[in-house]
Amino acid sequence: MFGKIEHIGIAVANLKESNKLYEKLLGTSHYKTEEVVAEGVLTSFFKAGPNKIELLEATKSESPIAKFIEKKGEGIHHIAFAVDDIREELARLEAEGFVLLNKEPKKGADNKLVAFVHPKSANGVLIELCQEIND
Amino acid sequence: MFGKIEHIGIAVANLKESNKLYEKLLGTSHYKTEEVVAEGVLTSFFKAGPNKIELLEATKSESPIAKFIEKKGEGIHHIAFAVDDIREELARLEAEGFVLLNKEPKKGADNKLVAFVHPKSANGVLIELCQEIND
Repeated sequence: MFGKIEHIGIAVANLKESNKLYEKLLGTSHYKTEEVVAEGVLTSFFKAGPNKIELLEATKSESPIAKFIEKKGEGIHHIAFAVDDIREELARLEAEGFVLLNKEPKKGADNKLVAFVHPKSANGVLIELCQEIND
Repeated sequence: MFGKIEHIGIAVANLKESNKLYEKLLGTSHYKTEEVVAEGVLTSFFKAGPNKIELLEATKSESPIAKFIEKKGEGIHHIAFAVDDIREELARLEAEGFVLLNKEPKKGADNKLVAFVHPKSANGVLIELCQEIND
C-alpha cells in the first residue's frame, strides 16, 4: 500500500528563476539543492507540511526533464508516493499488470530508492515510488 | 504560507475505470464520490496518508476537465495546497504578482473553499488553494 505523497516533481526551464517564484508562491525558501548526475537533473526542494515540492532542471539535452519540457512544456512531471518496501510494491504492481519503468529500484535524489510506473499504466500520470534509504 | 498538499487532481476520461485502476495502484479503495455541478465534474477521492488523490471526470463538454483532456489528454490537472485563511493567501499572492483565476474563493468539492492560481504564474502548474469550511 502507498503512503503519503512524498513529493511532486515539477519540470522547470530555469531552476534559479523558479526557486524565486516558488519561494513567493509557497511562502517558504527551498531548503536544499541536489544534482542527480545519472538522471541529468539539478533539483531543489521545498517543504509543504509533511510533503515536498521538487523542482527539476535538466543539466543535459538527453535528460528526461529536457525531453519532457520539449514535448509538453514546463509543468508537473511526476507524483512520488512514499512506500515502506519498494521491492514488495514493485512486485505487487507488476502482478496487477502495471508497466514498470524500473524493475529494480535505483538511487534517486534525497537519499531515496526510487522506481517509476509508466504513465500509460496510470491515466497519463508518471508515478514514482520512493523508499527512504536507512544508512 | 501554504500547508500540506491537500490533494492532487487527476483528469480522467472514465471515472469508473479509473477508480478500479487507482484502487489497484494505491492499494486502497476510493472512499467517496461527489459531483460538483457548477464545475461540471464528477469526482472520487482516495487517501494516501495525510493526502488525497482526486480523480475528475467531466459531466459536460464545457467542463474545464473536458477541455483539459481534449487539449492535453488524461493526466495531472492540479495541485491543491491546504491553507488556513484562503482570503489572506489570495491577497498575499496577488500582491506578489501572481495571476489569480478566482479573486473570491468559491465552494468546491469535499467541503472546501477553493481558488486557483493561473498556471502561467507557476511554471505551467495549476495551483489550487483550499480551506476547510467549518460549518
